Amino acid sequence: MTAPRPSAGRRRAPRDAAHLETFSDGVFAIAATLLTLDVAVGTFPRGHLLSGLSHAWPQFLAYGLSFLLIGQIWASHHVMFRWIDDADHVLLLLDVALLGCIALQPVPTRLVADALRHGSHTDQAVAVALYSGLLFLGGLFYNAIWRYAAHADLLRPGLDRRRVRAQSRRYLLGPLVYLIAAGTAFLSVPVALVLDLLLIAAYLMPSADLTAADRNVP
Amino acid sequence: MTAPRPSAGRRRAPRDAAHLETFSDGVFAIAATLLTLDVAVGTFPRGHLLSGLSHAWPQFLAYGLSFLLIGQIWASHHVMFRWIDDADHVLLLLDVALLGCIALQPVPTRLVADALRHGSHTDQAVAVALYSGLLFLGGLFYNAIWRYAAHADLLRPGLDRRRVRAQSRRYLLGPLVYLIAAGTAFLSVPVALVLDLLLIAAYLMPSADLTAADRNVP
Amino acid sequence: MTAPRPSAGRRRAPRDAAHLETFSDGVFAIAATLLTLDVAVGTFPRGHLLSGLSHAWPQFLAYGLSFLLIGQIWASHHVMFRWIDDADHVLLLLDVALLGCIALQPVPTRLVADALRHGSHTDQAVAVALYSGLLFLGGLFYNAIWRYAAHADLLRPGLDRRRVRAQSRRYLLGPLVYLIAAGTAFLSVPVALVLDLLLIAAYLMPSADLTAADRNVP
Amino acid sequence: MTAPRPSAGRRRAPRDAAHLETFSDGVFAIAATLLTLDVAVGTFPRGHLLSGLSHAWPQFLAYGLSFLLIGQIWASHHVMFRWIDDADHVLLLLDVALLGCIALQPVPTRLVADALRHGSHTDQAVAVALYSGLLFLGGLFYNAIWRYAAHADLLRPGLDRRRVRAQSRRYLLGPLVYLIAAGTAFLSVPVALVLDLLLIAAYLMPSADLTAADRNVP
Repeated sequence: MTAPRPSAGRRRAPRDAAHLETFSDGVFAIAATLLTLDVAVGTFPRGHLLSGLSHAWPQFLAYGLSFLLIGQIWASHHVMFRWIDDADHVLLLLDVALLGCIALQPVPTRLVADALRHGSHTDQAVAVALYSGLLFLGGLFYNAIWRYAAHADLLRPGLDRRRVRAQSRRYLLGPLVYLIAAGTAFLSVPVALVLDLLLIAAYLMPSADLTAADRNVP
Repeated sequence: MTAPRPSAGRRRAPRDAAHLETFSDGVFAIAATLLTLDVAVGTFPRGHLLSGLSHAWPQFLAYGLSFLLIGQIWASHHVMFRWIDDADHVLLLLDVALLGCIALQPVPTRLVADALRHGSHTDQAVAVALYSGLLFLGGLFYNAIWRYAAHADLLRPGLDRRRVRAQSRRYLLGPLVYLIAAGTAFLSVPVALVLDLLLIAAYLMPSADLTAADRNVP
Repeated sequence: MTAPRPSAGRRRAPRDAAHLETFSDGVFAIAATLLTLDVAVGTFPRGHLLSGLSHAWPQFLAYGLSFLLIGQIWASHHVMFRWIDDADHVLLLLDVALLGCIALQPVPTRLVADALRHGSHTDQAVAVALYSGLLFLGGLFYNAIWRYAAHADLLRPGLDRRRVRAQSRRYLLGPLVYLIAAGTAFLSVPVALVLDLLLIAAYLMPSADLTAADRNVP
Repeated sequence: MTAPRPSAGRRRAPRDAAHLETFSDGVFAIAATLLTLDVAVGTFPRGHLLSGLSHAWPQFLAYGLSFLLIGQIWASHHVMFRWIDDADHVLLLLDVALLGCIALQPVPTRLVADALRHGSHTDQAVAVALYSGLLFLGGLFYNAIWRYAAHADLLRPGLDRRRVRAQSRRYLLGPLVYLIAAGTAFLSVPVALVLDLLLIAAYLMPSADLTAADRNVP
């Protein structure tokens, strides 16, 4: 028999949260790596590799940013799950929904890269709105995971309620900015892209509240 | 040397079940993420991205549902394996067969999405029958894993026989409905699709028996 | 600090073997799942999905067999690594070489499926010879891992030398039959395919020696 | 509740480093396996499979070398992380950046294989320079991880400073040679390729300093 698993009271087996993280790690890693499939595809006419590649710069840029983006969401997801102690069926489904958004991110990434290269202005607005809109949807599920875990008492004991609420507010920033970016895309594609980039940059900073809380864990 | 592994009597090393789950997690994660490769592929004529995407709605729908479906089978698989304590060679092969069905699911998913878009009525029936039929086949292996584990005494001790039998009956529901859906596809494509959706919805509920049993584990 | 790792004498950190297995599990899972990318690709003319699929049967067959094959090699690999206690740099490289063969297996799988469908007799012989030849090469690395581990004293203590030698002989069977199949392909494609199938079937049996040994581990 | 995690002082939860390795293993495994997607693609005219494959040798060669290359970087990465005890947000981002380079490696691999087959001399120089250049960039992040970990006191206690500095110097060799190879590509494609190959071969040797240090860990 494997190691005994304490599972007293209403709790489900605690290794669920760990298992969820392994599955999530897999989806994050694959989604990030699949981005590569859309870079510099096709064949280049003999003698024109350099010029072909130089026209493909939006693909390289889109790859780099989206890889960083997925890597950063993975990192935040992992920090969040350090504080989630247990998983029930609802939490698991919310996480699957979030992963579904992450795994789909390569699609708008490709559309943005293509539209920047040879799309009309409307194509670019649509692609950037879809890119931001999918991030907005993912952000909603991300927030739902955190709030549901707090509500259903799945968080690690010893995490102070004030910190949880502060983190809940902080997590709202993401979907809010992505929603604004999605709307802005129809007014100005560059402004919408800059908003997305600013948010990626902002999230590259460590999550102050949880990290600070971490230091005080007994 | 690694941690000593008790392996008394006819039992094989118990970390086999854990190892099997890691491999399974990988296949589930990859199969789910590969679904993304069939969404909004190809290039759109300049200025027609929005109309192109709006015609691709069956692909987005098929992606969303199949991702949820695979995520849900993963979750059920994981709940089932919480009760499987040990793995022998036969169990392992049954699991590989199940995974082979899961990994193939993106193929009928793509065929359904394509057929809904520009297939004839017969094409749609064939695609939906294949989609349901593969789920039926996977469901057979799923049931075989559970029944074999119960038969070969690989279940976790302390799981009451009545609960095992109740779960065995409950697991039969899946392949049964999928088989009906596969047959129905030739009469009515929408009814067959609704049957598949109902079953996905039904499985989104937690598996009552095992979850309840879990609460009483010492 | 993480758990202390005993690493006395000439031994490297023992978690290397576990780490190697995780990486290997990943490659096995991905290679098996990527097989799906070659099934029923392309679009079917409206109203011809059924006839299109019925002509694609070699792809479904090739998918099923190769998935089973990779799943079975994964299972054997995992049984073998239960007996490998430690990994050094050479062992690691041998395993990477084996994984390189496994990951490439989808290529000859696709070639065989295509050649059976609309290749000339020579195309079929070439494809089956390549399929068997790659399995032969992988089998060589597989044997090299086991023999190197025995030679470099990386096996788990308590494994009796006679059993190790018996297993060494047993492992030779695989590459031997694959080599014969590769040669036979140029005489008779069906005979070569049957040889490959027989070997897959033979390996689906549990590895008698190691499994038996496992039962006697203290 | 899961096992309590000591997290005194400025340290973050130590399982971060382990988690980072799991995610990294995933990206390495997927990137290596995705290389297979570029081998022997397309269909061969009936009766011309053998001649078609014989012209595809640069693809097989590129596959083999790049698989070995990624496998070797994975192995080195894993040896390095045996000595990294803890991970903070910066280390995590540096690792994501390194993984972004690894995951992109299939792209220049395909370009080199294509250019060797039917590119002009300039195409070949561009492709090999890009191949080496991406390895150079990855090497920079690799070095940054090690130096940052040493600087931010994230290394395992008991690792002697002299060894750390010796390893820091040793790690510089990689990006240096790749930079030279990238520049040399415009003078002589074969010399640049030989430089890359020599470095792969050199890294196939175990990392003497850390491995030696490992033996003396209490």
